[in-house]
Amino acid sequence: MSTTNLAASVVVKGEGREVIKVALVGFGTVGRSVARILLTRFAGQFSVTQICNRNHEAKKVDWVPGEVEWTDSLNDVIESDAEVVFELMGGIDPAEQLVTRALRARKSVVTANKQLIARCGPELVRLAREHGVNLLYGASVAGGIPVLDGIQHGLSGDRIRKIEGILNGTCNLILSQMQATGASFEDALKEAQAKGFAEADPTEDVDGLDARAKLTILARAAFESDVLPTQLFANSIRTIEGVDFDYANDLGCTIRQISRAQLEGDHLYAGVQPTLVSKTSPLGLSVGGQNLVVTTGEFGGNTVFAGAGAGGDPTAVAVVSDLLWIARHQRRAEAAASNEAKKLKVSGDFKSAHYLRFKVQDRPGIIATLAQSLATHGINIDAVFQRPGYPKSALPFVITLEPCSAPVLTAAMDEIKQLDFHVCEPLDLPILG
Amino acid sequence: MSTTNLAASVVVKGEGREVIKVALVGFGTVGRSVARILLTRFAGQFSVTQICNRNHEAKKVDWVPGEVEWTDSLNDVIESDAEVVFELMGGIDPAEQLVTRALRARKSVVTANKQLIARCGPELVRLAREHGVNLLYGASVAGGIPVLDGIQHGLSGDRIRKIEGILNGTCNLILSQMQATGASFEDALKEAQAKGFAEADPTEDVDGLDARAKLTILARAAFESDVLPTQLFANSIRTIEGVDFDYANDLGCTIRQISRAQLEGDHLYAGVQPTLVSKTSPLGLSVGGQNLVVTTGEFGGNTVFAGAGAGGDPTAVAVVSDLLWIARHQRRAEAAASNEAKKLKVSGDFKSAHYLRFKVQDRPGIIATLAQSLATHGINIDAVFQRPGYPKSALPFVITLEPCSAPVLTAAMDEIKQLDFHVCEPLDLPILG
Repeated sequence: MSTTNLAASVVVKGEGREVIKVALVGFGTVGRSVARILLTRFAGQFSVTQICNRNHEAKKVDWVPGEVEWTDSLNDVIESDAEVVFELMGGIDPAEQLVTRALRARKSVVTANKQLIARCGPELVRLAREHGVNLLYGASVAGGIPVLDGIQHGLSGDRIRKIEGILNGTCNLILSQMQATGASFEDALKEAQAKGFAEADPTEDVDGLDARAKLTILARAAFESDVLPTQLFANSIRTIEGVDFDYANDLGCTIRQISRAQLEGDHLYAGVQPTLVSKTSPLGLSVGGQNLVVTTGEFGGNTVFAGAGAGGDPTAVAVVSDLLWIARHQRRAEAAASNEAKKLKVSGDFKSAHYLRFKVQDRPGIIATLAQSLATHGINIDAVFQRPGYPKSALPFVITLEPCSAPVLTAAMDEIKQLDFHVCEPLDLPILG
Repeated sequence: MSTTNLAASVVVKGEGREVIKVALVGFGTVGRSVARILLTRFAGQFSVTQICNRNHEAKKVDWVPGEVEWTDSLNDVIESDAEVVFELMGGIDPAEQLVTRALRARKSVVTANKQLIARCGPELVRLAREHGVNLLYGASVAGGIPVLDGIQHGLSGDRIRKIEGILNGTCNLILSQMQATGASFEDALKEAQAKGFAEADPTEDVDGLDARAKLTILARAAFESDVLPTQLFANSIRTIEGVDFDYANDLGCTIRQISRAQLEGDHLYAGVQPTLVSKTSPLGLSVGGQNLVVTTGEFGGNTVFAGAGAGGDPTAVAVVSDLLWIARHQRRAEAAASNEAKKLKVSGDFKSAHYLRFKVQDRPGIIATLAQSLATHGINIDAVFQRPGYPKSALPFVITLEPCSAPVLTAAMDEIKQLDFHVCEPLDLPILG
């Protein structure tokens, strides 16, 4: 393993723990979320030395500690002793310049920049390798969903044949809104813009360029090929009308912006376009700003990854996870692994809504007796259900309960089980969510 | 980084590539799949030196190369020069003994053994660390779905608050069969047994012990705690009757065996039990032998992982992925990373079924003209749809096509677009699946 810059500038602080210095470039939505997670969840493990943003005075916030240096200058970051640089500016220029200079200065880089990685990823990865540092970009695809990680690690033993995904939350929001309300594309777009889910210029999203950059990055990982975004087609969703959802529905389908890539021999078929998908498939069931990716492997079959594909906090999770990977793998494996396991108090006493199913020899007053018994224990009944068509000698009925804690319910049920009208033991199931 | 056994016994073969020697213990369904993947997909990278199984003569297959040594003896494996041992026997005894001895002999171990890891994981991981080798067990939870990997790496930057999952495919098959057909538990179990999806003694599955072991392993990773399976409750699904699915349905729900763990302060609430879940939630939509896990993070929100939770090939993918991790991280990072990117021919010419939506100034003969034009290009029409209620001056209708390749369709559509009855350009979308 190469010697790394990371090792050179370690400072030791607190209980003998090594603190890694990081610099943050770009203090927009994602940058702020990253700073917040680092300062709250990982305060003892990482120290933010610099925050760099154009016109940084306007960006300053009171929850960033005083020792953090604010700057407008990329030079300050390159010349600093930060071991890891977060590139969270987006766009190609000056992000490419920053990443190149940081890698050459033997700093590892974590980026969420899909356009940069789609266009220049292979060269930048080579540059990082030449300088014995890491360039990680898990946040560049599907925000907080660890699908790139899944393809690169957990599924690496498979031979991936196909990727189908919803990689742009804005398009998914617009299309699922058109599906749900019958709105036109223009109205659904306007609504998404009004709510802040679509840009004033929505081209990157609705014309498929954003998804194409992400598909490029996924396809590279899945098929071990240096494919470029310009090799992939991208069709707009602007052409979809309300009537198309009606016809799609007649076909058991709905319409989504689908990014797909499929390997056949040495041919890669890949592109982004609005597509009919089965209403009951994971892709068809995905609504709102969600992202979802289905990989198909020769051995493992279909694997689905879904979650929040964008937004400051989910994207920041991916950024910080990449930082943790660097911390674990660059000479810190031992330190990271020796974290003490937390001592937790473990119990099964969930607080849940409950489904109680009784089967009784019917007679008047049973519900009253049960209601009384539950009330004594402070448990509230939500509803009582009794389906017709069952014999009075073994009559099933159901009581649902408002959320209560398991021990309280157990005490009530212990009493209730003693009553003489049961044909079999009552069934008690929690109701999720 | 510690010196490892892996480095000691490297052999160089072929184009200067390092071949890692592995020994396989347990040649059942998973063992056979692992051998097949290693021998086909990774022949130049790994060499299987030994296959160990009780009564190995009965297990021999002709597709394993002659140089592989077959043995009944764990001693042979421990004393061999294999650098990585696969423990694929299952059960505690003698698996625990094998893993312990292999780690002490400074061999890394990859296992799919959920019971062993649930019961002894923390000690075995410590033992591996003491000896500078790795113990990986991604295959012990949810087969080929990289959820453990996702929690340990891609989501490590988050603070996971809750895990809810379907971790036992047999229970999911039985419950989704009861839901679909109204079968009793006994009949659904018998059918699953007849098809080989349930064991003759189904206790481990239906009484929740299998899922509990997996939940233990996930909870340990998510909450960084050494929780033990015996601290978690497990309730059987045997008590569920057909009538419960009827009542659940009235509540907008269905019933699944749900494994859940939830952190509140220093309290971990965790257990496995049949549970009512919304019919339209990912958990409720999961049918058949599928596994599905939803993690909830403080920052990233909900992330869903789903796929084949069991079976030889999917489990083998997880086992081989762990082996690749070891190969990449134990002194082979450079070698693994310098793999040449494949040169692929990239195109967008998917072969798909298609949805063509026209909007026309209606007049007789339009369908005939279109059908003729498509036929000329050898494209088969699947169906024609025309919804009522639209004006004749801008009448939308749809033609669906049997699968054809994109360039053929483009040629046909270029011709069709020239026709004079269009009110707007026809829309052409692929239909997935």
